[in-house]
Amino acid sequence: MNPNQTVEDESQPSITAMTRRIQRLSIHLTPLPLFQPSPQLNMLTCAKANKLEFDKGSLSSYMRGKYRESQEKVLEFFKSRPYLQTPIEISMNEHRELCMRQLMALVREAKIKPFRYIVEDPAKYFAIAEAVGNIDISLGIKLGVHCSLWGGSVLNLGTKKHRDKYFDGIDNLDYLGCFAMTELHHGELCFHCGLQTIATFDRITDEFIIDTPNDGAIKWWIGNAAVHGKFATVFAKLILTTHDSKGDSDMGVHGFIVPIRDLKTHQTLPGIEIHDCGHKIGLNGVDNGALRFCSVRIPRDNLLNRFGDVSRDGKYTSSLPTINKRFAAMLGELVGGRVGLASSSVGFLKIAVTIAVRYSLLRQQFGPPKQPEVSILDYQSHQHKLMPMLASTYAFHFATRDLVDKYSEIKKTHNEQLVGDVHALSAGLKSYVTSYTAKSLSTCREACGGHGYAAVNRLGSLRNDHDIFQTFEGDNTVLLQQVAGDLLKQYKDKFQGGPLSVTWNYLRESMNTYLSQPNPVTARWESADHLRDPKFQLDAFRYRTSRLLQSAVARLRKHSKTHGSFGAWNRQSTSSQNT
Amino acid sequence: MNPNQTVEDESQPSITAMTRRIQRLSIHLTPLPLFQPSPQLNMLTCAKANKLEFDKGSLSSYMRGKYRESQEKVLEFFKSRPYLQTPIEISMNEHRELCMRQLMALVREAKIKPFRYIVEDPAKYFAIAEAVGNIDISLGIKLGVHCSLWGGSVLNLGTKKHRDKYFDGIDNLDYLGCFAMTELHHGELCFHCGLQTIATFDRITDEFIIDTPNDGAIKWWIGNAAVHGKFATVFAKLILTTHDSKGDSDMGVHGFIVPIRDLKTHQTLPGIEIHDCGHKIGLNGVDNGALRFCSVRIPRDNLLNRFGDVSRDGKYTSSLPTINKRFAAMLGELVGGRVGLASSSVGFLKIAVTIAVRYSLLRQQFGPPKQPEVSILDYQSHQHKLMPMLASTYAFHFATRDLVDKYSEIKKTHNEQLVGDVHALSAGLKSYVTSYTAKSLSTCREACGGHGYAAVNRLGSLRNDHDIFQTFEGDNTVLLQQVAGDLLKQYKDKFQGGPLSVTWNYLRESMNTYLSQPNPVTARWESADHLRDPKFQLDAFRYRTSRLLQSAVARLRKHSKTHGSFGAWNRQSTSSQNT
Repeated sequence: MNPNQTVEDESQPSITAMTRRIQRLSIHLTPLPLFQPSPQLNMLTCAKANKLEFDKGSLSSYMRGKYRESQEKVLEFFKSRPYLQTPIEISMNEHRELCMRQLMALVREAKIKPFRYIVEDPAKYFAIAEAVGNIDISLGIKLGVHCSLWGGSVLNLGTKKHRDKYFDGIDNLDYLGCFAMTELHHGELCFHCGLQTIATFDRITDEFIIDTPNDGAIKWWIGNAAVHGKFATVFAKLILTTHDSKGDSDMGVHGFIVPIRDLKTHQTLPGIEIHDCGHKIGLNGVDNGALRFCSVRIPRDNLLNRFGDVSRDGKYTSSLPTINKRFAAMLGELVGGRVGLASSSVGFLKIAVTIAVRYSLLRQQFGPPKQPEVSILDYQSHQHKLMPMLASTYAFHFATRDLVDKYSEIKKTHNEQLVGDVHALSAGLKSYVTSYTAKSLSTCREACGGHGYAAVNRLGSLRNDHDIFQTFEGDNTVLLQQVAGDLLKQYKDKFQGGPLSVTWNYLRESMNTYLSQPNPVTARWESADHLRDPKFQLDAFRYRTSRLLQSAVARLRKHSKTHGSFGAWNRQSTSSQNT
Repeated sequence: MNPNQTVEDESQPSITAMTRRIQRLSIHLTPLPLFQPSPQLNMLTCAKANKLEFDKGSLSSYMRGKYRESQEKVLEFFKSRPYLQTPIEISMNEHRELCMRQLMALVREAKIKPFRYIVEDPAKYFAIAEAVGNIDISLGIKLGVHCSLWGGSVLNLGTKKHRDKYFDGIDNLDYLGCFAMTELHHGELCFHCGLQTIATFDRITDEFIIDTPNDGAIKWWIGNAAVHGKFATVFAKLILTTHDSKGDSDMGVHGFIVPIRDLKTHQTLPGIEIHDCGHKIGLNGVDNGALRFCSVRIPRDNLLNRFGDVSRDGKYTSSLPTINKRFAAMLGELVGGRVGLASSSVGFLKIAVTIAVRYSLLRQQFGPPKQPEVSILDYQSHQHKLMPMLASTYAFHFATRDLVDKYSEIKKTHNEQLVGDVHALSAGLKSYVTSYTAKSLSTCREACGGHGYAAVNRLGSLRNDHDIFQTFEGDNTVLLQQVAGDLLKQYKDKFQGGPLSVTWNYLRESMNTYLSQPNPVTARWESADHLRDPKFQLDAFRYRTSRLLQSAVARLRKHSKTHGSFGAWNRQSTSSQNT
């Protein structure tokens, strides 16, 4: 096939409508040669077929912003190296090895340094991560586990000594790492109340001893653990033994750098047991494993000591007065994972909606009797499936970009209020966007009919790989409840005269004005100017949030009297999500 | 592990709450041995853990009815033959071969004869198909393509000579076959207006010549075609050449038995081109292929001639006067496919909801402060995910069983009105049930959190395999529009004094009474007796259908004036689905 020859090629006037249609369909069909490859069966330039006349370059620049070139560099790099592209059929073990080779090539051949960007320009990191996810979502996750979770924990929870010792190894992938938080019994979201792994300080040898006290405390689903990881940041309760009557003291959960495999031989180190978590629904390029620690000794320096430290003589010091404050600080530093998931999820939505809209424009079906066929996108039912999705994709693109900007800002300013906002916003956006993308991937498959079911058209692997985005870094249902909890706290603060953060500041106004009138924002205007005015739309959303918040508070108060606060919350947890 | 030892075993009083929890979780974890298999880590009898005290046997008998034993025979057969079970990781080619071996073993070793049941007892066939789908959905589909589609077309569109010649070969799998309806350009649903494959009668040799006139007419996604099929029922326009001025006559689409591979050598026969459709999102045990025919000659006897025949001298005869009537008759005979999909889909919903409910009972999370943990099913948000789904599963079980009974009845009585009803009901139920199951499979995965993402827990393969149920045998959106069209026709018939079929008979009453009063069914009673009364509930549904139908008719009439009937239909196609 000659890719330069298009449907509209005027040297081919005899092409029938039927052949044209086949040509168009051929975009979405298997790249294997058809029965009799003929020069008429060309790939087609989509923009030409669709008669798009706007300037694609400008739109692309506007959307991708200053990272357009970096993203294209990633895409070009893999496009020109077919041996680095993930085939449709690949065994789990081969996929894991390929994914490692892809990551190596990205960093060492293409000289793209995502870990560096986390420090220098977080927005660039998220842009690269989105582009990398387009190659293979497994690669995006493997990169995220290494750079953002493992590397990010060293950067953000550690101090200068850790950066000096580990930065280069993380940057050049010599020190491939894991983020060992989730335990079999307790997931990541609840880590501040449930993690059971312990790190006991041994004053005699100046070491911490890491232990898995029971099967429920096995670190589970740990990315990079099954095959490739050399290190892990292990989250464990720091135990200090005292020699007086008080016994042991639990100082709360801290992060510890634990070497898990020998840097030279890659052998598993003594006291570490590694179990392979096996096949997953998707993301089989990522080697998830389980880790169990049996009296694993690490130097005192391996404590990530930014928020709390232990001295040579076993004394604990922290700039933060309570366990809860330290947890909150740690959580604030780890919020980048959620920001990344929300941002990547929009990336996959972009791919899916593009595939589905293009196909629906090109695929034709019966129109009115005795008239030419119409594009299936001419059907109202099809438009209702895809057009709101396309609009939402743009909205999510800008919303997540705003979140990324806010995240970059807190990395610079460490503004405490903004940290709180980013925490709530990232929980809400991660949850909303990943649920929306998951549903949309299914809708797009259906909208492409049988051809959507061909593996080559990607909708299946996108769905399988993306599926777990709804669960990791916090189950979406639980995260929405967390956002609700945060809003309720803001509401309380307002009544107690406390400060409201920037994002929720409107609640002050709304509670003073909106809620005292029946419906003040609309003023019952119906003109297009009014309805399309962003200010009106923003007011409408704020009005809705305020009303719902007020009503949730009233219901919680009512139920708390009879069911206690846990019971009241449980009884409201569905309505607070749905209304 | 000793499977007979359960959690409540009193000889193990030292088991801690933690160990118990692990034991419970172990049901849902990989069957690979844990680090240190211990006698405490037992599989658990679920009913005992849940303290279910009703008689499971009676419930099972009531639900499965008289086919319980046949279904259990299938499950036991595969359970006792691990080499016939589909592993989690398997290449497409290996999966296809395994699936063929599974089918062979079912018929030749277990002596289960699904094709025979289609004739003797269709309900038994659907029960077997549901059980077979539990082994591997690919196997269920491969069996369905062979028995119900290929075999069913021979039985239902052919006559005695076809049954005599092919029955045994189909029954014993010597004559593995395909159902070649869908073309690349036009799907199965539109076959009466769009299929382009042609079958020209050659009076000199007494043969039909099958031809694919263009690429759009290639038979596409044909199950069993890529590797295993020996025969195909090919749907093609029957062309009779006349020797007078009228030229060729198109008698409409008919089914033809076309041998595609040599019975002994399995070589592709001359004039047949077979293309492999390759990897799919799921169902990779089924070998879908594309078929192209280049002047393939078949004996005149290979026309499936129940509804239309060609004599030795090229004369066409039919008991049915018009092309449309013949199409309708053919469609009526092919409705079994949809009945089967609806029924199987409920089967997968049963599996998924069982996995998710069990897991949610056993998995525990934080409860009220300083109190024991609660099962995650104690959370209202979790109940709202799973309990309506469980109730719907029962409702769909009975609804599809009713459909199967009606289908069995038309196979006996050929009652024309009931045929129409089964056609509309199967379109509606197939669409509604498969969409519901598809969404629920995703919800169940989420409800099981990270462990739901482990491939071993089946939710991923169920979703991938089931996904296409929403598309094949008719796209769900299009099928719902078909049902709407059928209802509108019934509405018209009523006004024109025509007969209403049994199922829709209530429309007569409703249009005379319900719609002349504001809301007569409720009578504003709110007692539990009234609200739980099945008669009230049925009336409420009928009231709703009638109201919506009346309003749809009014809107269609209004829009028809300005947009024509096609435009009006298109403009209403979303609201008619959603309301």
